[in-house]
Amino acid sequence: MQTLPLAGIRVLDLTQIFQGPYASFLMAMAGADVVKVEPPGGERMRQGSGANTTLSFATLNSNKKSLTLDLKHPRGKELLKSMAAQADVLLENFAAGTMDRLGLGWEVMRAINPRLVYGSATGYGLTGPDRDLLAMDHTIQAASGIMSITGEAGGPPARAGGTPCDIMGGIHLYAGVLQALLGRNRTGQGTLVEVAMVEAMYFTLTSDFAAYHRTGALPERRGDKTPANTAPYGRYRCKDGWIALICVSEDQWTRILEVVGRTDLAGNPDYAGREKRHARESEINAMIEAWSAKLSRDEAFAAMRKNRVPVAPIRNLEDVRNDPHMHARGTLRRMQHPDMGEIVLPRAPIRLSDYACAEVAFFPEAGANGAEVLRDWLGLSAAEIAELEKDRVI
Amino acid sequence: MQTLPLAGIRVLDLTQIFQGPYASFLMAMAGADVVKVEPPGGERMRQGSGANTTLSFATLNSNKKSLTLDLKHPRGKELLKSMAAQADVLLENFAAGTMDRLGLGWEVMRAINPRLVYGSATGYGLTGPDRDLLAMDHTIQAASGIMSITGEAGGPPARAGGTPCDIMGGIHLYAGVLQALLGRNRTGQGTLVEVAMVEAMYFTLTSDFAAYHRTGALPERRGDKTPANTAPYGRYRCKDGWIALICVSEDQWTRILEVVGRTDLAGNPDYAGREKRHARESEINAMIEAWSAKLSRDEAFAAMRKNRVPVAPIRNLEDVRNDPHMHARGTLRRMQHPDMGEIVLPRAPIRLSDYACAEVAFFPEAGANGAEVLRDWLGLSAAEIAELEKDRVI
Repeated sequence: MQTLPLAGIRVLDLTQIFQGPYASFLMAMAGADVVKVEPPGGERMRQGSGANTTLSFATLNSNKKSLTLDLKHPRGKELLKSMAAQADVLLENFAAGTMDRLGLGWEVMRAINPRLVYGSATGYGLTGPDRDLLAMDHTIQAASGIMSITGEAGGPPARAGGTPCDIMGGIHLYAGVLQALLGRNRTGQGTLVEVAMVEAMYFTLTSDFAAYHRTGALPERRGDKTPANTAPYGRYRCKDGWIALICVSEDQWTRILEVVGRTDLAGNPDYAGREKRHARESEINAMIEAWSAKLSRDEAFAAMRKNRVPVAPIRNLEDVRNDPHMHARGTLRRMQHPDMGEIVLPRAPIRLSDYACAEVAFFPEAGANGAEVLRDWLGLSAAEIAELEKDRVI
Repeated sequence: MQTLPLAGIRVLDLTQIFQGPYASFLMAMAGADVVKVEPPGGERMRQGSGANTTLSFATLNSNKKSLTLDLKHPRGKELLKSMAAQADVLLENFAAGTMDRLGLGWEVMRAINPRLVYGSATGYGLTGPDRDLLAMDHTIQAASGIMSITGEAGGPPARAGGTPCDIMGGIHLYAGVLQALLGRNRTGQGTLVEVAMVEAMYFTLTSDFAAYHRTGALPERRGDKTPANTAPYGRYRCKDGWIALICVSEDQWTRILEVVGRTDLAGNPDYAGREKRHARESEINAMIEAWSAKLSRDEAFAAMRKNRVPVAPIRNLEDVRNDPHMHARGTLRRMQHPDMGEIVLPRAPIRLSDYACAEVAFFPEAGANGAEVLRDWLGLSAAEIAELEKDRVI
């Protein structure tokens, strides 16, 4: 086993909420030395300390160090610049232009450290007519088009559950920074890395853009499936929940018929091929639900699974956080936090066989590592650090 | 401007459909030499050639080369192994165990080329009790929990529009491969990179897991917002469509009141703070819709935007593919394909200021670069290549 792949990489992490912190979480889990730079009092998403810390914050800030720093204070700015001179990566997801207004933007940082990789994640990017439009996951769901194709037929456009735009932005920022570090290994130079959530979401709609191109008709909302011309494909009600399944081959069709006890239809040319089944979709869905409605979700899932149909139970969040599979793989861990009690925390969803898998270390309290970081990175003395504390710079 | 950051990286790309091809698309756009290895006839998602090619295929396979290769033919296997000896990266998203059964799995490839980074993207990963469960975006939406919190209150669980699980898996695979290439720069050794879609989706539900932890109540479906205790936050009907907005500060609340003409409520303590507004959510939403219902979507959006509220129009796919912002930024391009006609194709949603941005080159027809690749990578002669064609190996 090797040391972690990003060992030795120093990251100044100014990110907040979800998008940026996911990128720096992945860096920390891959072995980088991530210093979270927070405003005095800590970033807003903490919503408190100790037992009051949000699980969102705990999930996205494992394995980081915390330094509080007032970036509006002249000495706060100087400290950040001094640290940037030593850093490999600086990450921020403020609104476009914020760092420039603080006098801490990319041009300033590059002059201090030409090797610095400076990662910016925003809603719409650093250029273009929508650059200054305020953005959160919710509004990007609207702007990206995903909301227009989520929800029931005839109903209003709906949010996709969770915050997929934030996380999609964050993982693209992470990939962009790694791409820049690979480039730096050749050129010796850093670069500005720019990711816009609305652009990162575009590819999630690939199949819908293709359906639109093929048919000329705007994809309509259909809560059970994409516009694909294939059936069966959807959600099926069981006694106590739902299963989701999809059939993409003739073999799978035959296997579904076996499970639901309708082998009389196997080989029937009226049901052969995706197009013909698509034309009989309502009938086929009713046939499957006539079977599934008599079973529990887990029974229906097990029967389809056993016959090698692409199927899954529609799981709620209790199911997911207890998922035996992700716990067996070590991706999810039940951990006893001294203040928060038992919580489930995830590792990074990227594994490299020849490197150790970092253990989760709990998020730091705001400023917990300030003195250590200022000593290690900048060689400050205890007296200097005490003065910075007294003057509320850190 | 530098050459592209992945220039010189050779990629053998065995991926299909959405998940893996998105990873290799990003590699190609970052300058890697990506050879798509397809079964004779081409991968299924093409659904034809020329004008019949799906836009999905065209979107995800720009800037790649294509070599057809029969991996069940002994000489096809030998050719793949010979190429793997020269490659930096091999990517595949077959079901777990498929490459091993072909005799072309990670252990075989590593023995041939210890520097090879071998990327595997699956639904559930290469270990664990669900390893062999067939997976597609649809079933991962069910298994990951996102379907359980998508849809309307009281209605059935619904799909998030598009294929977010596929793309989330693909971008994590890309990041994992870059992480491994960075590690290789230090160690000289390749590694197996493993990504499971169901794990990559976990983080998109961070805010919902946090709400569940905080309240002890399973988050319920609500098509308009996450379980956040804040208002206003949702979708608002206009004359001809919808806008989405969210209010996360007192300043934004005041600015929303200005826009809707209800400054009489500004400073009213009954509406001060997220919790109090959350308690009056229905009333507040009705107040905003009383205003928005009289306006067009674009008028309502413009008014909120002008007053610096986080807002967006709920855009359909026609709006998105014509988005002036993404076209101005060069992220989307209208291009004239010789067979498909005018299509909109995206560049990578990652930009590095100090590197050129690759121009989109159209997807290759199946096998279009076979002879060139076999000559350049393996030094095969025209006669040898003709024989492989005659024997249907390529």
